[in-house]
Amino acid sequence: MTVSERTTRTLAESLRDKIGQRVRLEGWMHNLRKFGGVNFLQLRDRTGLTQVVLEPEEVEKLSGLQLESVVAVEGTVADEERAPGGVEVRDAEVEVLVPVTEVLPFEINKKVLKPSLDVFLSNAPVGLRFPVKQAIFRVYADLLAGFREYLIPRGFVEIHTPKLVGSATEGGANVFKLDYFDRAAYLAQSPQIYKQIMVGIFERVFEIGPAFRAEEHSTVRHLNEYTSLDVEMGFISGPDEVMDLLITLLEAMVEAPFARHPLDVKLLGMELPRFGTIPRITLREAQRIILERHGEDNTTEPDLSPQDERWIGEWADAEYNTDFVFVTHFPTAKRAFYTLPDPADPTYSLSFDLIYKGQELVSGSQRINSYEQQVRALQERGIDAEPFEALLQSLRFGMPPEGGFAIGSERLLMRLAGADNIRETTLFPRDVNRLTP
Amino acid sequence: MTVSERTTRTLAESLRDKIGQRVRLEGWMHNLRKFGGVNFLQLRDRTGLTQVVLEPEEVEKLSGLQLESVVAVEGTVADEERAPGGVEVRDAEVEVLVPVTEVLPFEINKKVLKPSLDVFLSNAPVGLRFPVKQAIFRVYADLLAGFREYLIPRGFVEIHTPKLVGSATEGGANVFKLDYFDRAAYLAQSPQIYKQIMVGIFERVFEIGPAFRAEEHSTVRHLNEYTSLDVEMGFISGPDEVMDLLITLLEAMVEAPFARHPLDVKLLGMELPRFGTIPRITLREAQRIILERHGEDNTTEPDLSPQDERWIGEWADAEYNTDFVFVTHFPTAKRAFYTLPDPADPTYSLSFDLIYKGQELVSGSQRINSYEQQVRALQERGIDAEPFEALLQSLRFGMPPEGGFAIGSERLLMRLAGADNIRETTLFPRDVNRLTP
Repeated sequence: MTVSERTTRTLAESLRDKIGQRVRLEGWMHNLRKFGGVNFLQLRDRTGLTQVVLEPEEVEKLSGLQLESVVAVEGTVADEERAPGGVEVRDAEVEVLVPVTEVLPFEINKKVLKPSLDVFLSNAPVGLRFPVKQAIFRVYADLLAGFREYLIPRGFVEIHTPKLVGSATEGGANVFKLDYFDRAAYLAQSPQIYKQIMVGIFERVFEIGPAFRAEEHSTVRHLNEYTSLDVEMGFISGPDEVMDLLITLLEAMVEAPFARHPLDVKLLGMELPRFGTIPRITLREAQRIILERHGEDNTTEPDLSPQDERWIGEWADAEYNTDFVFVTHFPTAKRAFYTLPDPADPTYSLSFDLIYKGQELVSGSQRINSYEQQVRALQERGIDAEPFEALLQSLRFGMPPEGGFAIGSERLLMRLAGADNIRETTLFPRDVNRLTP
Repeated sequence: MTVSERTTRTLAESLRDKIGQRVRLEGWMHNLRKFGGVNFLQLRDRTGLTQVVLEPEEVEKLSGLQLESVVAVEGTVADEERAPGGVEVRDAEVEVLVPVTEVLPFEINKKVLKPSLDVFLSNAPVGLRFPVKQAIFRVYADLLAGFREYLIPRGFVEIHTPKLVGSATEGGANVFKLDYFDRAAYLAQSPQIYKQIMVGIFERVFEIGPAFRAEEHSTVRHLNEYTSLDVEMGFISGPDEVMDLLITLLEAMVEAPFARHPLDVKLLGMELPRFGTIPRITLREAQRIILERHGEDNTTEPDLSPQDERWIGEWADAEYNTDFVFVTHFPTAKRAFYTLPDPADPTYSLSFDLIYKGQELVSGSQRINSYEQQVRALQERGIDAEPFEALLQSLRFGMPPEGGFAIGSERLLMRLAGADNIRETTLFPRDVNRLTP
């Protein structure tokens, strides 16, 4: 039988509805072992694993082949409570579709992966077939779907803005530069300028796209390329409206995989974050709380240290029974040039960080929406205004009060899946040492 | 009244439900004119335009201000059949939220835009506020949503793969190169290699992301950066299954804006393409049809010329009453190295182009899924295999028969919206001359 003559394929997930029927399965040879004198093939398709009982003459057809060979199996579906999924396939005939003769670089059919992260990443094209890895990236897709499905009905318009830009958008230090037809171009560090401009057009926008940072230092939380989830909204009454949206959005996002891929969520041991009533405290309030609770006086520091973030997360947990806490009003001088200073005290800005389980997860702010104020802010920072002319034009022609935030998608997944390294929740991570695969 | 104290905002689209009520609107001053002794303000928000009747003392508040000023209006909603939308707001009080004092570079409140495309693009941050432009990019967002909403329930998993890559994926000629921590990196010309690898993991994947081509020539159909809609699927019976999916996917995509933004679709004069029964003919058959109908013998050419595409489109229209035609079996030597040669005649490949109204819209193919065959294909083309090791590893460990395609999203929008230049359907296009805004 050739592939083009094949009958309709049945997927693992629908076998329970076909007890007693003859079916054709196609997938990868995930495992093949003898148990109590019986040969069991575990066939893997995109919906899961199927246990197939093979008579010796069928096993013979697989002789000399390695795991991951692509095979078709025709057999009869039977109830079998000892099998995963409660069914198995018997009286099976095997057909080899694509033989594999090489041994895998490491086993992908056990409970855990043995290789180091580095060895895993170098072999990601096959390593990602490991079911737990698959689960991580299906959950990832659900988070993205949850993001969009929350925003679109609320009037947010999806945009795609250029990643090749004429100047560094977030400062010149960590930007990748390239030759663009005998001029210099840069890779966008964020869609910040464009999403602000687009508020002048659609009021509410979002973008899912790559962001590039030429950071030379390697950490478990940073990559040189990541997928940024950007949100920007106009006609806001203040930063609280942006924070409100962020929280309800995050709730919708994290619920998505629980609703869509409960087995993956279970496999990963994921738990829903506790939202509850999330406190919103200023940086200075947070520092005073830390001084009171831990005796450490950081009340003049311009930011929270990692230890501060852990402490304030513990405080939110203890006092509010939540995994989250908003810290607001960071010093204006420490935030990006487009951040709106608090009119009540311009030393501090209408900015916020969302801390999740003691670590920063999302940053956002209300933005400067007055042209004159933005020009002054650039001047005060000694930043040349010319590269920002598009934003400035947009502000000259009427920009409503607006704000937004960006979520690093791989980092969110890392935190939700309980991974230790962002490279575990990125398909093909890019860092100082890694440009392939 | 300050912004933070504002009452709930009413949007233009919901005024019809509030006849007789007092509402607060916020938006841009789209137009202000006197007609029959009465002053009319047209207020624009993200949902449309509202006609507001202003008494002279309210107009006075707007004196010295230019169009696009951001204003709030409180007034009473009244039936008024002569007004757009059938309602107007009377007894209005105006509050200026963000004044504009500069005159727009060109008018954005008339039926058509006057400036040249070049002037428009240089002023896109405000030009895109023109309602017809807004409509184009809301339709764009609908197309993307339609793409995903068709694929996700059919088992396709969304992926995001690196745009910084270690080698040119589609050939070295038109690739952007950059310095990546003292090594060379390239901007991905497509996610081709990665989406094929991901078939080995998820069987069915899609990606929406930027693609970069360092083409030096400028045409109305090409950009140096575009948003590619990539689909790849495994366990196929042949290329027809991929073509089947492409057509039902396209149907779902183009229906999305008709269902979601009918007013935008009407404003743009968009019509649903005629699908019907789409013929699938080989390149050689197409050329024979052209010879018969037009007397031009191109039967040994390796591809269709633009004139050929128009003719074969006319043929499909006349004979099949459809806007589409698939042309298949292009010479293997003329398609990318991963294209599967037809086993029945390896001179030709299991590739296809979808022609829409006489112009190529989508390219796709079944791919080589045998490791040995892929190695040979690279050798025969004199392409170094080393940069493709990730793909080759994936093929060594069992790749099912698979295929896919890529849709240039801006080009699809251009064709559907009847635009003459892809720069009209790209928010901030990138070409040889244009890197800003």
